[in-house]
Amino acid sequence: MLTVILAIGREILRGRVQDTNSWTLARRLTGLGHEVVRIAACDDDLVAIVREVRRAAEDGATLVVTTGGLGPTDDDRTLQALADATDCPLALHPEARDLVAERYEALARTGAVADGGMTAPREKMAWIPVGAAPLPNPVGAAPGIWLEAGPTIYVALPGVPAEMRAILEHAVAPVLAARAPGAVYAERRIVTRARDESAIAPLLRRLGQELPQVYAKSRPTRFGSEARLEVFASAWGKDRDEVEARLARAVALLREALGEAPADG
Amino acid sequence: MLTVILAIGREILRGRVQDTNSWTLARRLTGLGHEVVRIAACDDDLVAIVREVRRAAEDGATLVVTTGGLGPTDDDRTLQALADATDCPLALHPEARDLVAERYEALARTGAVADGGMTAPREKMAWIPVGAAPLPNPVGAAPGIWLEAGPTIYVALPGVPAEMRAILEHAVAPVLAARAPGAVYAERRIVTRARDESAIAPLLRRLGQELPQVYAKSRPTRFGSEARLEVFASAWGKDRDEVEARLARAVALLREALGEAPADG
Repeated sequence: MLTVILAIGREILRGRVQDTNSWTLARRLTGLGHEVVRIAACDDDLVAIVREVRRAAEDGATLVVTTGGLGPTDDDRTLQALADATDCPLALHPEARDLVAERYEALARTGAVADGGMTAPREKMAWIPVGAAPLPNPVGAAPGIWLEAGPTIYVALPGVPAEMRAILEHAVAPVLAARAPGAVYAERRIVTRARDESAIAPLLRRLGQELPQVYAKSRPTRFGSEARLEVFASAWGKDRDEVEARLARAVALLREALGEAPADG
Repeated sequence: MLTVILAIGREILRGRVQDTNSWTLARRLTGLGHEVVRIAACDDDLVAIVREVRRAAEDGATLVVTTGGLGPTDDDRTLQALADATDCPLALHPEARDLVAERYEALARTGAVADGGMTAPREKMAWIPVGAAPLPNPVGAAPGIWLEAGPTIYVALPGVPAEMRAILEHAVAPVLAARAPGAVYAERRIVTRARDESAIAPLLRRLGQELPQVYAKSRPTRFGSEARLEVFASAWGKDRDEVEARLARAVALLREALGEAPADG
């Protein structure tokens, strides 16, 4: 599915924290057979988030994965923005409320919070768009959510990386693997003997003409203490064998033209 | 200035490399007094890049900083996209051509490239939008560019982080510091004794009412082996003393209500 990843939080825009979630998601969703077409980070402002969700629709995305903005404070606005953008208003979801309540009761038993009872800020995390399902959070308090609205799946995950990864692996990746459109993705990387990117531009052009299904891109890298070029080749296809055969052909052409550094880096 | 950061390159969308440039730029531009409103990563596709540049205008950005897509290969398309989006067509820039030529002559002298002469892929890096100025690249071959078109400054930097940082520090930051709209930005972080984010939501709401110029945000963190909350408070203003005084007031209120962990983390 065409996919947009959206990281929400002013701390990212201020450079206060590095957004590692988008990188994790890009790698994982690509491996599951989904094509990430854009990654964006925006402020935790309702108008800004709604605008980004609408832009994902302009991009043709049918999978939108957000991180951040699910917590108990007033600047956690992701679910309100999804509700506004999809016309699925927020409602208190009993199962989500149970998940939140159980989490705080457990935290109170260990002394991590003073009082395990339900409060308005805690309950806020269980107000999710109508039609959405909560995704249990094995690490923190805020459930993720899974919402299908029109042609699009929206997955909202917490911003804390450990929580994001836990929900991704437990609840999201298995379902998205099954929803991948029968596409397989494969990539190969070779560190070449070449050092001059300007000299390999014609080669990459010929490769693109001969194997248009393969995307090959050069990048300066180091090989030991030497400046070298790596070439990263990737391809999508319906069939694993076909994709691997195309990549093998591309790698053979690149090695023939450029040579390969003595051991693959 | 309202700022959009745009990272260009399919390798980011595939999770093949982590986009660290946007983080570096967000931190640095914020410190210089510019307000980053969005960060995006898109494919090295002409239509996709033009669309992102137009979206920056929709966001009201008057500063757009791009990374990636300045090199010699056919999939380096950033300058063509800036040309298309701003109606400043590409032209061979004599000074940019000299910069590229000198770089390859020097590389040939050290044996890093076989031939130091000008070729079409090398010259491509000197075709820049009409009205743009090249920014010397002390690390690699592709110059950055500085383009003012209408109300907006476009700064295009290479994707290789060492090249990006070198041009940023040598050629871009000094000018952008002088162009900052007299704004100062400051931030404070305290690690509190609090552990329960849901319990501090009402406090952050009161703080926002009392000090609307201060943005305060809580985030789970660790303090030694203990789960704690950090609160990150930031403010913009015209005057350094005024901004610092507001932040000091916010920090005092937070410490009074939450306590501070024994030593600042």
